[in-house]
Amino acid sequence: MKDPTIMVNYEMAVEESMEKIIELLDEKKYFQVRDELLKYNEADIAEMFEELFDLEDKMESTIVVYRLLPKDVSVEVFSYLPSDDQLKIVEGITTSELNYIVQELDFDDKIDILEELPANIVNTILENTPKDERSLINSFLNYPDNCAGSLMTPEYISLQKDMSVKEALEHIREVGMDAETIYTCYVKDLGRKLIGIVSLSTLVTAASNEKIMNIMRTDYIWLNVYDDQESVADQFKKYGFIAMPVVDKEHRLVGIITVDDILDVIEAENTEDIERMAGIIAFEDTDKGYLDISVWQHAINRLPWLLILMVAYIFTGMIVTSFEDKLSSIMSLVAYMPMLMGTGGNTGSQASTLIIRGLATDEVDISDTLKILWKEVRIGLLVGTILSLFNFLRVVYLDGNSVPVAVTICAAMLAIVVFAKVLGSMIPLIVKKAKLDPALIANPAISSISDAVALSIYFAMAMVFLGL
Amino acid sequence: MKDPTIMVNYEMAVEESMEKIIELLDEKKYFQVRDELLKYNEADIAEMFEELFDLEDKMESTIVVYRLLPKDVSVEVFSYLPSDDQLKIVEGITTSELNYIVQELDFDDKIDILEELPANIVNTILENTPKDERSLINSFLNYPDNCAGSLMTPEYISLQKDMSVKEALEHIREVGMDAETIYTCYVKDLGRKLIGIVSLSTLVTAASNEKIMNIMRTDYIWLNVYDDQESVADQFKKYGFIAMPVVDKEHRLVGIITVDDILDVIEAENTEDIERMAGIIAFEDTDKGYLDISVWQHAINRLPWLLILMVAYIFTGMIVTSFEDKLSSIMSLVAYMPMLMGTGGNTGSQASTLIIRGLATDEVDISDTLKILWKEVRIGLLVGTILSLFNFLRVVYLDGNSVPVAVTICAAMLAIVVFAKVLGSMIPLIVKKAKLDPALIANPAISSISDAVALSIYFAMAMVFLGL
Repeated sequence: MKDPTIMVNYEMAVEESMEKIIELLDEKKYFQVRDELLKYNEADIAEMFEELFDLEDKMESTIVVYRLLPKDVSVEVFSYLPSDDQLKIVEGITTSELNYIVQELDFDDKIDILEELPANIVNTILENTPKDERSLINSFLNYPDNCAGSLMTPEYISLQKDMSVKEALEHIREVGMDAETIYTCYVKDLGRKLIGIVSLSTLVTAASNEKIMNIMRTDYIWLNVYDDQESVADQFKKYGFIAMPVVDKEHRLVGIITVDDILDVIEAENTEDIERMAGIIAFEDTDKGYLDISVWQHAINRLPWLLILMVAYIFTGMIVTSFEDKLSSIMSLVAYMPMLMGTGGNTGSQASTLIIRGLATDEVDISDTLKILWKEVRIGLLVGTILSLFNFLRVVYLDGNSVPVAVTICAAMLAIVVFAKVLGSMIPLIVKKAKLDPALIANPAISSISDAVALSIYFAMAMVFLGL
Repeated sequence: MKDPTIMVNYEMAVEESMEKIIELLDEKKYFQVRDELLKYNEADIAEMFEELFDLEDKMESTIVVYRLLPKDVSVEVFSYLPSDDQLKIVEGITTSELNYIVQELDFDDKIDILEELPANIVNTILENTPKDERSLINSFLNYPDNCAGSLMTPEYISLQKDMSVKEALEHIREVGMDAETIYTCYVKDLGRKLIGIVSLSTLVTAASNEKIMNIMRTDYIWLNVYDDQESVADQFKKYGFIAMPVVDKEHRLVGIITVDDILDVIEAENTEDIERMAGIIAFEDTDKGYLDISVWQHAINRLPWLLILMVAYIFTGMIVTSFEDKLSSIMSLVAYMPMLMGTGGNTGSQASTLIIRGLATDEVDISDTLKILWKEVRIGLLVGTILSLFNFLRVVYLDGNSVPVAVTICAAMLAIVVFAKVLGSMIPLIVKKAKLDPALIANPAISSISDAVALSIYFAMAMVFLGL
């Protein structure tokens, strides 16, 4: 923040600046736009560019302003932008400007943008890259998405075990690296195998003639290059580190992952879980935001579950049809079908949501199955009884139906709630036992199973209490 | 990790160790249990204790083993445990052991455990605390939950602006602090106001006679002590810092927040959102896991929405009742009610989930309302058409109903899907506009509104196409 007063009333300041910027853009006062932007931190500037790129008539002038930014700022702003806005910039700047940006980006950001760019642009950029780095880039581009290799950066400090602390600190001063990657130094043997780690704070507080081998920690935690990003995030959450080393099969250090990239992974994994629970399967890569996904792709992501449920509803229809004759003799029973099915679905989703989330955050485990079952049965009895009492009053006094009809509905309600709680809590555990992602058994599936069972219970109760 | 081979096959190693430990506990070989545990990192040991505490018959022997741990390890393990297990330990150890642990904990962990402990124990601990720290603890205990003040620690390095780099590094060596809090140093004026920050990496790479005032950054980002933890997490995500300073109203530095504590905040905020979307309102503090929440509390968290929806279903029932006579003349229409209502609810939840999540991750905004509306209308038309075609075949060929009945159902299906997509996407935006949490308008609510509308649409179509 170049101007500290902005922080005090940040949102208002941004709003005012944006209004001013849009006016200035219309007047083609690009240098003044630049100066207004430069009052902010690079992350804030990037957010303002995002807003500007959303205004389609401002596209060209936005690019002009971007090109007027000081070079170091322009690189940082670029790294904060979402990939679709990065592509807009790439298309609007010269090859030499693009080359400059790509060379200056942090290595992990560089890989991310190269993955998004069209092949011909990538080739031009690689031609302008020194050979050593080019082969490094190529090896990084080959790691599959969503694994540790795709999150790591090769920019770390490596030390030798027989260096002294003084030599180590001098070495750090010479390579002089980004803040985020300097705080843990990695000790490698001659075969590039990782043998220990030493934090900058240890270095700074140690005697300057002490040997690295005497102060390095050998009981460090590492990641494998093909570890799934979800498990990588779990390790960061568990151990609370700022950075973790990534090794290959031969235990050679190939890169490090820093915690700031993990925040994004956690959000992405949560988004995936939330969408799956709602019966949405993202077939395309999940980097794209809602607005950037096409109508077709949105439909494709949402249709599979809806179609599967269509098949399930054939059975629900059959249950109703088989009871049609009896139902027509007491038509008032039809009016309660939506409530009983809806409550079953909602109460089942409540249970499944809690268990799916509990499994994701390691709060519950398959070994807790019996405890969960017993808990949900009791919760179901309690909730079902309260809802039944409420309904008894409604059915008798509000709707003016007979007591046997009310008893039928209340007994069905209680049985449905207990059943839905058990179903909703047990299915995620079964899916987990089968080593699948519990979120994949979406809440819509639980609703539709519970719909079919709710109707069967309802009609069974009607036969018992109304003698149909 | 004291034994690196463990990392290669971590899960298997833990499982084997746990089996061994349980056997050894039965044989009362406590020292051997301790040695087995000490092969692991403190975070892993804490997880193993968690498992042991779950075995109720092992409670006492688990505490015995805990007391045998080396003192520094016992403190670290304690800090990793969830609060209910911490309480079990507190009850099982002596006052002097407890005093030792509390004194040695990081300040933020200390505050967390003091908040959970019974008042008499807290008083005993505070009596054994030096006066200065006692008043600091008291002021930290007063910050409301879920604000920046409740996440911060006062353990940071503070420098004076006229120190030299050499003096600064010496000062750091003297205070010698935890790794996580050392990497950014804070420069305060004589009135304790924050005037700049300087990172350890800058210090290490700067000339040793350089003055701090010349290398400190004054364009830093800060947090206010009463900022909500969700907005704190957003700042960390946006700027990617490892630590951020927290100031009071007078811009005095009162503490810092480190990114490792933010990972937990993000998970907790996501859990809250997910639960709210499923119609669960956590009235108690959300630190407790599923298994630790009582049956009563679970029921209380789940009942409000279910009861509100009961009222909504009174209207749904009225819609059905008003159509009862007409429905009884074509009973086969009843069989399709579950499908039409269910599909409306599911497809509406898909849309609302995407928009609620998009709002939470800043991918969409209220200003995108028209874009979203237009997108969802098209998605609804596409999805609705495909589902209608599928249903036409089912109704005519599988169920053997007449074409007019099929047309009624297909027309209803298309209209319901489009309506549900619009409803599901617009309601979260309206709630957001009203400055409420969009997740609060739970998916069950959207389902139940969509149920009522779905039935109305269905019956209207029946009147049009079947002339009822």
